[in-house]
Amino acid sequence: MSDPRFPEDPDGLLDEIWRRLEAGVASAGHPFHTAALATFGPDVRTVVLRRVERDLRRICCHTDLRSRKVVQLEQDATAAWMFYDAEDRVQLRARGAVALHATDALARAQWAASRPGSRRCYLSAGGPGAALPSPGSGLPDGLLDRRPSEAESAPGEANFAVVACELTELDWLALDSRGHRRARFTWQEGGWQHAWITP
Amino acid sequence: MSDPRFPEDPDGLLDEIWRRLEAGVASAGHPFHTAALATFGPDVRTVVLRRVERDLRRICCHTDLRSRKVVQLEQDATAAWMFYDAEDRVQLRARGAVALHATDALARAQWAASRPGSRRCYLSAGGPGAALPSPGSGLPDGLLDRRPSEAESAPGEANFAVVACELTELDWLALDSRGHRRARFTWQEGGWQHAWITP
Repeated sequence: MSDPRFPEDPDGLLDEIWRRLEAGVASAGHPFHTAALATFGPDVRTVVLRRVERDLRRICCHTDLRSRKVVQLEQDATAAWMFYDAEDRVQLRARGAVALHATDALARAQWAASRPGSRRCYLSAGGPGAALPSPGSGLPDGLLDRRPSEAESAPGEANFAVVACELTELDWLALDSRGHRRARFTWQEGGWQHAWITP
Repeated sequence: MSDPRFPEDPDGLLDEIWRRLEAGVASAGHPFHTAALATFGPDVRTVVLRRVERDLRRICCHTDLRSRKVVQLEQDATAAWMFYDAEDRVQLRARGAVALHATDALARAQWAASRPGSRRCYLSAGGPGAALPSPGSGLPDGLLDRRPSEAESAPGEANFAVVACELTELDWLALDSRGHRRARFTWQEGGWQHAWITP
């Protein structure tokens, strides 16, 4: 009983996993465009998948350097990601060590490629979690209901960082009323070790 | 500029948060029916919200006692939950201390209220994560494509537990192109302390 959602040979399934991650970066409408990112705490929030490099086993999101997840990643530089495709009923979990990139070449490249609309949130006065006297966005008055220009967005770069995670574990779960299917890939000795496991 | 998705007075917003959690338990179609559950590791997976008790500040999901999250919760009995309503663009994060309930009154009540179809996954031979020789569900042969009867599901109760989390922190984020809104509630000295914070 084969499942059209994924190949049953491990290499083919690994290809399918990376294809979906790459599609998640490329398209804002793809179910893997967002992930739940868990950090030491434990804590969890939604992030946007911003970069995928299969050869480096690396996936990245962006963060404000003033956010709580940065404090948590400085305490314990590991993270867990979870992607879910509700239509296909496929869950991908991924874990690995995290490196925070700020003001280096990777951070500069990701900032340069980001759109002014996405940069707006890095312009808040106090940073994520800072107290406000009333419900508000914390943005400068002039930017409440419009996107910043390229020049207006520039100060945000000082608050910008890339969370880069080098994956060492992938856990694929395909839900099915006839019985789920689950596979685990573990990076060991320079290769992905594969196992079918009980869902 | 008021937002129809939530009241701007803290008590009203707290009501709205609990109403959504209660709706998530009651309806499988509600966006808060599922959550990302993060545990020590860090690690994260999707769970189904199974019980909400506002007076106890307690929310619950179910688990197989043989799963990795049980090992993680035994190491560090705290958890973080994240709910997301894609239509309303509302994210709720919640954190608290966890108690695992197996074979006690709460576990018996939740097992008794669960449907045979939901009980099937507790019947796998090796438990979640156990190695399989090929892609499979790990279920007994006779249950591959049908729901167990009440009697057939009974042995699953030995593998069943309730993850009960007493919440001490709620973080509400309403996304909006005109600027997001975010509120934090912290349980302190017998009451929920409220703060508007930068998104």
